[in-house]
Amino acid sequence: MKLYTYWRSSCSYRVRIALGLKGLAWDSIPVHLVKGEQRDPGYVAHNPSGFVPTLVLEDGTELVQSMAILDYLEAVYPDPALLPADPLDRARVLAAAHVIAMDTQPVTNVGVVGHLKATYGVDMQGGIDWMVHFMQRNLAAFDRLIAPEGTFSFGDSPTWADICLVPQLYNAHRWGVDLGRFPRLLTIERAALALPAFDAARPETQPDAE
Amino acid sequence: MKLYTYWRSSCSYRVRIALGLKGLAWDSIPVHLVKGEQRDPGYVAHNPSGFVPTLVLEDGTELVQSMAILDYLEAVYPDPALLPADPLDRARVLAAAHVIAMDTQPVTNVGVVGHLKATYGVDMQGGIDWMVHFMQRNLAAFDRLIAPEGTFSFGDSPTWADICLVPQLYNAHRWGVDLGRFPRLLTIERAALALPAFDAARPETQPDAE
Repeated sequence: MKLYTYWRSSCSYRVRIALGLKGLAWDSIPVHLVKGEQRDPGYVAHNPSGFVPTLVLEDGTELVQSMAILDYLEAVYPDPALLPADPLDRARVLAAAHVIAMDTQPVTNVGVVGHLKATYGVDMQGGIDWMVHFMQRNLAAFDRLIAPEGTFSFGDSPTWADICLVPQLYNAHRWGVDLGRFPRLLTIERAALALPAFDAARPETQPDAE
Repeated sequence: MKLYTYWRSSCSYRVRIALGLKGLAWDSIPVHLVKGEQRDPGYVAHNPSGFVPTLVLEDGTELVQSMAILDYLEAVYPDPALLPADPLDRARVLAAAHVIAMDTQPVTNVGVVGHLKATYGVDMQGGIDWMVHFMQRNLAAFDRLIAPEGTFSFGDSPTWADICLVPQLYNAHRWGVDLGRFPRLLTIERAALALPAFDAARPETQPDAE
């Protein structure tokens, strides 16, 4: 498989983690988001939204949207399971994952913050404040939706909740979110990054890291 | 079942459609988003994000996050199926649904636009421009990700893609998005709203509509 990816893209990071947990090998095709390569017509032909990641399967089939890619991987490579089998438990994991994948990342990504700055005259600090506001608000909700204890967000093995959390925490550290309020999330982050699949997916270990 | 809902909330609208398509009866518990009732501590105890919808099952179990609720309904009430069984087809439906559920609604909802106005001195028109920008951009991507023909986004029966599209189009009409560029989306909207489940879920037919 091949993955169009950017080292600091948290949606790419999610898919890198899932591929690693499933034991799948992949080649990196970097798309430089800060240079705007995601808007090149050649790339948009692969991904109409102009976003990363895009996963290219062995037969050339292309899949977009990180959570749809995770769903595909779960169906085709069920072992190890990254979602519970019970519908109610599964809905609880998805709800926590979606607090990040829906409410947080899309509101704070490079495109949205770039639009805020370019169109509304907001400066660098205003852009950072925007990101910190939504990350702080939503990490608090995530913290209340997960299980109160356990190695990971839900139990002793990683789920989509952790796969969404760890990349979001990378951004939260980067932009100065006060994470001291969320000791449980930091404990989960440490446990996750101790796993080889999470470690290998880190931004700073990617071939396109700067 | 009971649903904490707001007539104009597109995430509530999605769940209302899915409940209707599955033939499930539910009672409405309105939460007035414009009056800020979603921030009342009494409501936040049900939904830590302070968002609607929240689905209350017969036994009192509460589920949050519209797409997690859809997933639960799909697992427990599989007929009629609102997602394809084939993993690749399913990932394609999810990708289109997520262009709306992840990239569009969370960026243009009442809380985010309210924050833009309250914190960055943006006026009413600036808030509308923000919503229109992201809706237009993302509806174009949605239009390219769905099947080029068929009654609905993917084939001749509704899927999560349509369940996300129709509420988003309600907002797009409301805020003046140029939908003439998307004739296929308008055709799908007409076909969907001709179904009783979509019709009964419309904002203007809800008990809390103003």
